[in-house]
This record gives sequence, C-alpha cells and structure tokens, in this order.
Amino acid sequence: MRTTTGWQAEGAGTALRRTSLHRRDLRPDDLAIRVDYCGVCHSDLHALGSHDSARNGPLVPGHEFTGVVTGTGPAVTRFAAGDPVAVGNIVDACGACPMCRAGQENFCHTFPTLTYAGVDRHDGSTTLGAFSREYVVRDRFAHPLPPGLDPAAAAPLLCAGITVWEPLRSLGVGPGSRVAVAGLGGLGHLAVKFAVALGADTTVISRSPGKADDARRLGAHHLIVSSDPAEMAAARDRFDVVVDTISASHDLGPYLRLVAMDGTLSHLGHLGPVSVETMDLLVGRKKLSSAGSGGLPATAAMLDFCAEYGITAEIELLPSARVNEAFDRLRRNDVRYRFVLDMSDLDRAEP
Amino acid sequence: MRTTTGWQAEGAGTALRRTSLHRRDLRPDDLAIRVDYCGVCHSDLHALGSHDSARNGPLVPGHEFTGVVTGTGPAVTRFAAGDPVAVGNIVDACGACPMCRAGQENFCHTFPTLTYAGVDRHDGSTTLGAFSREYVVRDRFAHPLPPGLDPAAAAPLLCAGITVWEPLRSLGVGPGSRVAVAGLGGLGHLAVKFAVALGADTTVISRSPGKADDARRLGAHHLIVSSDPAEMAAARDRFDVVVDTISASHDLGPYLRLVAMDGTLSHLGHLGPVSVETMDLLVGRKKLSSAGSGGLPATAAMLDFCAEYGITAEIELLPSARVNEAFDRLRRNDVRYRFVLDMSDLDRAEP
Repeated sequence: MRTTTGWQAEGAGTALRRTSLHRRDLRPDDLAIRVDYCGVCHSDLHALGSHDSARNGPLVPGHEFTGVVTGTGPAVTRFAAGDPVAVGNIVDACGACPMCRAGQENFCHTFPTLTYAGVDRHDGSTTLGAFSREYVVRDRFAHPLPPGLDPAAAAPLLCAGITVWEPLRSLGVGPGSRVAVAGLGGLGHLAVKFAVALGADTTVISRSPGKADDARRLGAHHLIVSSDPAEMAAARDRFDVVVDTISASHDLGPYLRLVAMDGTLSHLGHLGPVSVETMDLLVGRKKLSSAGSGGLPATAAMLDFCAEYGITAEIELLPSARVNEAFDRLRRNDVRYRFVLDMSDLDRAEP
Repeated sequence: MRTTTGWQAEGAGTALRRTSLHRRDLRPDDLAIRVDYCGVCHSDLHALGSHDSARNGPLVPGHEFTGVVTGTGPAVTRFAAGDPVAVGNIVDACGACPMCRAGQENFCHTFPTLTYAGVDRHDGSTTLGAFSREYVVRDRFAHPLPPGLDPAAAAPLLCAGITVWEPLRSLGVGPGSRVAVAGLGGLGHLAVKFAVALGADTTVISRSPGKADDARRLGAHHLIVSSDPAEMAAARDRFDVVVDTISASHDLGPYLRLVAMDGTLSHLGHLGPVSVETMDLLVGRKKLSSAGSGGLPATAAMLDFCAEYGITAEIELLPSARVNEAFDRLRRNDVRYRFVLDMSDLDRAEP
C-alpha cells in the first residue's frame, strides 16, 4: 500500500478533516499521480450531504484534477514520470459493453467506476477522491494535459467542462447555432466559452441584470433577464439549444418555451426527477435531454479544443486547507465560477 | 345560417344525442362539406369528460373526417362541389406568426382554432365538430382526399395519422432506422404502418404476446412483450426512435431505456405533465419529445404518402347512431383500431 494525505469526511454533513490515506500499489496499467489541483463540484456537495459512511466508509471527494505522473506500472506506455495529466470523474469501466466500445465509458452498462465513492473492479474497495496529494488511476482514464493550459484553471474542465461540451457537440452546435445558457456558475460559464468558441450566437439567461458584464466578458453576445417576463416572451422559440445549468430544482417550462422548433433543452445542472408539461414539448416539437460527464474520446477532443482556443475555467484558487470554507461558499452560490484546491499545502506538516 | 344534424353532449359525461345544429353561412373562402365519415379519437373521450358546457355551450365532437364539397364561397379556387376532401383538428390559425409562416399552423402562437370547442376568429362562436352531416371550413384547412384512399378508412389519418407522421418524419425515420412503437391502438397501428413504409426496421412493444399476429399483419418485423423483463432488458439501447402511443399515464423509464444513444422517445399518447428521471435521459444522451397534430404541408405530404403506399387506418365502421356505444368501447380500449362513424344515417328521420 502507498500512503498519502487528503481531506476526508467521516459521515454525512461533517466537515472534512485532514488525514492519512492509503492508495493501492500500482497494478501493471496504473499511474501514480501527484495531485496538484482539484476542482470543487456541486456534486461533491451532494455527496457530502448524502454519503452513507456506515456502509461505504469515509468520503474523500474530488473528481476533476490535474497533476504530474510520479510512477507507472510496467504495462504503461502512454505516460512517463513527469508528464502533466488530467483525470475526471470516471476511473474505470467494463470496456466491453456497446457504450464502452463506442467510447462512452460514462454510460457503461455495468456503471462506470467513479473517481470517489465508486467500487474498484479488482479489489472491491471504495474509491477515494482527489482531495488528496496522490491518486492512483488506470492509465486509460488519464489524459495528457495539453501544453499551454494552466493546470489549476484546467482542472474543472474534467467534470464541469466535459459535462457541457458533450451536449453542445452532440447537438451539433457550430457557426450559426443559436445557443442560450441558463445559469452562470461552474457549468454555465464554461458552456458560454465553448459555445462562443464553436461559433454560436450565444446568450446568457440570468435572473439578474447584474450578470451583463460577466456575460460579456465571457464572450456572450446577449443577456436575457429571466425575471423580466417581457424579455422572456420576446425570446420565445429563439434558440436551437438551451443549456440549463441551474443547480436548484426549477420549472423547465419557461426554458422550454425559449427553444426553437425542433430544438433541444439540455438539462444539466440538477439530477433527479424532472416534470414537464407535454404541451411544452409538443408545441414546436421540442426535445428535452440531459448530459453528465463524457467518454474518453470526447474528453480528449475537448482538451484539444481548449488548448487551441485557450479555454480554461475562471477559478478561485484556495489552499486545500480551506476546503470547508469552499463548500460553505458553494452552498451559498458564492463563487465565480469554480473553486480549485491547491494540494501543495498537503506536503507541509499540519499547522 | 345553415341547418344540419349532428350528435351533441349537453354537459360533461352525458350521452350524445341527435339534434339539429347551425352552421355559418359561407364566407368568401369557406367550403360547405357533406361529412361522410368521422373518426372517434381518444381526445374526444377526454373532451366529453371535461367539457364545461355552462361556459362553452354544448359539445359536438369529431375532428378527423372525410366528405364531399357541397358548396363554395366566391373566393374559393382550390375546390369545387363534388370534390372529395379531408379535414383534421385545426380549422384556422393566424397565418402571420413564425409557426404559421413555417407551415406549422398546429403551433400557431395565437393558438390554432380547433375543429370543435374552438373559438371562431371572426364571430367568436364556439366551433362544433364533425359528428354532424355538414361542416363549414375555411378552404385552406381542407385537403383534397387523394383518389384510391377509402374515405372511411382515411378519416383517422387526419388526426391519428398526422400525429404519428410528424415525429417519424421530423426525427428522420427512413431506411435503416430502428423504430419501436409502444401501444397498438389508433395512433400506434398507424405509426407501425408508416414506419414500415418508410423503410424502418419496426418493432411493436405490447404488454401481451397476443398482439404478435396483429403486429405482423401490420407489417412489423418484431414484437417485444413489455411485461417480460428479459425481453425489455435485451432491447436496451436498441431503437433510434421509440414512439410511445400508450394513452394511459405511465412510467416513461422503461421506454427511455430502450432508446439508443442520441435517440428519442416521442411521447404521444397522453397529454399532461410527465415526469422522467434525469438519469434515464442522461445515460445515452437520450431525448424526450412529444407531438400532436401537424401543419398543413405535412398533412398534405402524409396524404400523398398514404396514397402512394396504400395506407389507411384499420377501422370499425359504425352508423353514427351508435356513437355512444363507440365511446363506451373506446373507454375499455375495445377497438381495433379506430372507430369511424358513418354519417349517412343522419339523412334519415330519427327512428
């Protein structure tokens, strides 16, 4: 076993505490990674609130991270010590089902192994996430971090980024597309950057007119204030794709009504049951879809695109010791736009 | 005013009774039509159960009919007395909004005028449906009935037919598509015929294995018994399009799981709120859509297609005097596959 240090919650709702953690010895196709930066995702908050530690043991969150390879198993050929790498929320999959064969490991029929709170396919252990100074991962599930991308600001690409990239690409967004992004948080601000870089006419939908400057700075061409009924009515049937990244449960009707004939509302920010009025889909032959995470080929393509267009997340970088403060602020939506934890403080003795 | 005879309900839940009805005098662009055949639609049942006669007056259902032109207003050029015609559930629309200009009068932003229980755009009267010997309609909203189509069996094309035609066409169903049709009623049996004629590999999903012969006779290539978990599991991710025509409220999850990557569940049979698990959409990037009725150009194209492929509905033809029996049986789903009323008995004195 290898030993490292990380941030762990003993049970649902408890604060994370610094602790010593074990990592597995390297299997033939494993990489050891020194984790430098890990983003703080809304789903980490959800996991913290609902984790059953009596059943699954302590929780170490963290599933969008960058770092440097420090060791490789004997069968690894794609990476060598010193390589900058990036890992997202999936660290293994069956590799044999139709979804895996199609490069959509995120939809693996046996369910992909998640970066934390997942079940390792070999030893049955519960995976521990990347709020930690070291992570051990199967080589296929690590990506080379392209040169030129800031490793701290690139970390959120591996979950927030791919989650918005997949629907934009699969829905064919490109030059001439009319895209609206509802919610300007970790997912939303990356959706805006991607849509703009893909050539779409891009609109931000926000509850408050105060987001106008932010939207413009991110490259958006228009802002619709969702609390203004006249603005919402004027935008009826306007967008080929509406990317809904609002994290709270909400009525989809107002957003479906903005979708153009044969267009799609991609509902990303909130998991769980959603209810829609059939008439809101029927009138205009609109479609409702969702997305989350992505497959390995799409993630690689997204990283290449980000390198080409210089896209990373807008982040607030905090020493990992401030992880609980990050969660408190995330609960209040007080972040522009993603917290990233700097893990280097874990090399120092606890103060 | 013109006078005719039809079948009318005085209030919600009451039986239909034969009565004398008024039709408007012909406006310049109006046709008078002798109604020969009118289909009985599930939405008629719904209207009968919920109609507010204190507010909207008596209800005369009927919105998928064929007949013969008996008179024309002075501005009518497309039709002449003696022409066989077909009319669906929309008899007027604004003509000016983006949806009308796109030939999607069914999505008119001012709401289309429905064939019955709608509000006439000129005199504000409530429209009375085609369970009646005469109907007066604006010429744009009547279609020539192509030669070779049996007028009784063609009547259901104008509502059930176009409702399934629109999603099949807008979702790009053609040779090589994998289509499943859930529910083998008025909508479903036409969806099967269309999908087969469009060249799709076509599967019927039914609760009972007893539908196998029916499915085959309609041209379907396969049957999945939805009550058999093994058959449903084996069909996971198999279909580009699943057309869900089940009229009762039901869980969409099992049908979404049959949809292939990037495919669509078209939910047609049931109006009202529907709830889906985001994960059922997310896994496989699946889409939920709906449809109902269609625009004038699509309806004309469907009628041409039906004439080319010899497609009409499978019907049980009843004299219109048996309308209440038809509704009783429709409530019990005891029909293969659509009741059509023969209105000629209205020419005779009441027995």
